[in-house]
Amino acid sequence: MGTVAFDDIKTPYGHAEMAIGGAATYISLAASYFCKPVNVVSVIGHDFPEETLQEMRSRGVNTDGIKVIPDQKSFFWAGEYSDNLNARETLATELNVLADFDPVLPQAYRTSEYIMLGNLTPAVQSKVLDQAIEPKFVAMDTMNFWMDTAWDSLLEVIPRVDVLIINDEEARQLSGEYALAKAAQKILDMGLTYLIIKKGEHGALLFHEKDDVFFAPALPLSVVKDPTGAGDTFAGGFMGYMAKTEDLSFENMKRAVIYGSAMASFCVEEFSIEQLLRLDDEKINARIQQFTQLVHFEL
Amino acid sequence: MGTVAFDDIKTPYGHAEMAIGGAATYISLAASYFCKPVNVVSVIGHDFPEETLQEMRSRGVNTDGIKVIPDQKSFFWAGEYSDNLNARETLATELNVLADFDPVLPQAYRTSEYIMLGNLTPAVQSKVLDQAIEPKFVAMDTMNFWMDTAWDSLLEVIPRVDVLIINDEEARQLSGEYALAKAAQKILDMGLTYLIIKKGEHGALLFHEKDDVFFAPALPLSVVKDPTGAGDTFAGGFMGYMAKTEDLSFENMKRAVIYGSAMASFCVEEFSIEQLLRLDDEKINARIQQFTQLVHFEL
Repeated sequence: MGTVAFDDIKTPYGHAEMAIGGAATYISLAASYFCKPVNVVSVIGHDFPEETLQEMRSRGVNTDGIKVIPDQKSFFWAGEYSDNLNARETLATELNVLADFDPVLPQAYRTSEYIMLGNLTPAVQSKVLDQAIEPKFVAMDTMNFWMDTAWDSLLEVIPRVDVLIINDEEARQLSGEYALAKAAQKILDMGLTYLIIKKGEHGALLFHEKDDVFFAPALPLSVVKDPTGAGDTFAGGFMGYMAKTEDLSFENMKRAVIYGSAMASFCVEEFSIEQLLRLDDEKINARIQQFTQLVHFEL
Repeated sequence: MGTVAFDDIKTPYGHAEMAIGGAATYISLAASYFCKPVNVVSVIGHDFPEETLQEMRSRGVNTDGIKVIPDQKSFFWAGEYSDNLNARETLATELNVLADFDPVLPQAYRTSEYIMLGNLTPAVQSKVLDQAIEPKFVAMDTMNFWMDTAWDSLLEVIPRVDVLIINDEEARQLSGEYALAKAAQKILDMGLTYLIIKKGEHGALLFHEKDDVFFAPALPLSVVKDPTGAGDTFAGGFMGYMAKTEDLSFENMKRAVIYGSAMASFCVEEFSIEQLLRLDDEKINARIQQFTQLVHFEL
């Protein structure tokens, strides 16, 4: 569940106008390399290209849960990245169809075992969980905006999921702690079993209880053209791998974090969903080998 | 070779006045856990405590190469860290004895096989190498200031060493490239076999030729009190391990980077050299295990 939308993205490498974006777009495409079907719940307007939905379906993404509102436009975000791509400014946010989004899971979706709640209001995330029948493993994303504006309902959703996937700044705001090791303990105490803190170009940390911590590096890439969607692509790869393997152990979750990181590394090499449409097992496995080599040492 | 000096350090955790500092102090103490003797070349004034030199000697550090200038004061640096410790402001720099530092290697030092050139003017670093007789492995540190003020002599020293150990901002300035993968290739082309780029709380990268790259994480610590000396402690641990093992292979250098990272993780937990005086093999090995666990996964 998440947005399926348009982005206008400026980076030092170019300007993508009306590019395909949205959390659920990135999540579902990334997950589609690991399991099928990927059931998307979202909402779009009359302007979203049928061609893209067709491409998603051809990758095993079920778009039945994407509601079309004929007289409105799709969600739109415009942003510009700094020279080094490590900061971005939002130039425009048009909610459009998202303003009244009330997610309804098609009957076939309700028994989905692996659920990824993309970043939206905690209330909308809760509504999805209300309709799900005994999911095995639930992950959610959130952002600073909901910590500022919907704190109580955010703290109600968190204990209902298994893993929260947020970035370092979000973890710091949510916990009030700067050191990520301390932040993680406070956040786990909010009722979570697992916590993933994404650090962008600096990798990702997976926390579980007091001393279980795993660090996945980011690949040092020569070219990063557009960081948009990297976090959602990470989440999609992570959840896709979890759903494929059906193994909820910490050991397997580490592998899922590496797969998520690998998928994110592809995402940022081109604008929009460009790379996510043309991957295959061979490319993914080769990149997983690069991650393995990157941190491998023997004592 | 490097400074043996005083620091005045303010961090959110306290204020250390006239604390023991200096690159060579951190480097030699860190290295002393792996090999003996560690021969220090430096210069101090009348004010440097004999007690500290005695502590260094008791750890196997040879202080014969530390010249004492009776009528001058030791090098002094004062700085204040930001709330999050990720930025620091220099409040004072008093060169004192360092102004005319002309390093002279005692006869017994000249056949040292492993040489670490701490951050000082490239001309001083060159003078040390001029006196060394066929060293096996030479590492050097440098900083932005020398790139601004001594570019040509910096580019003359670099090809004389085996590994350059700098931080990410220094690598970016030295190469003119933001992406570290690109920066590394440009810097290696300046005549190096190996390059280590330290990223502080985000770990360290070891580069060797086109595709050999290794990433060592930083440990997510609950408390970081004082980052001063972390980079020098890393270098000392790295070089100490290299000298102990006498194995110049890339595989062994990876281990050395992990040992350097472990030593740096101890350094930042307390002010000044406090932690570096009270470690032992048991503590070091336990921390190495934490690093191993942190990145370990099996496909």
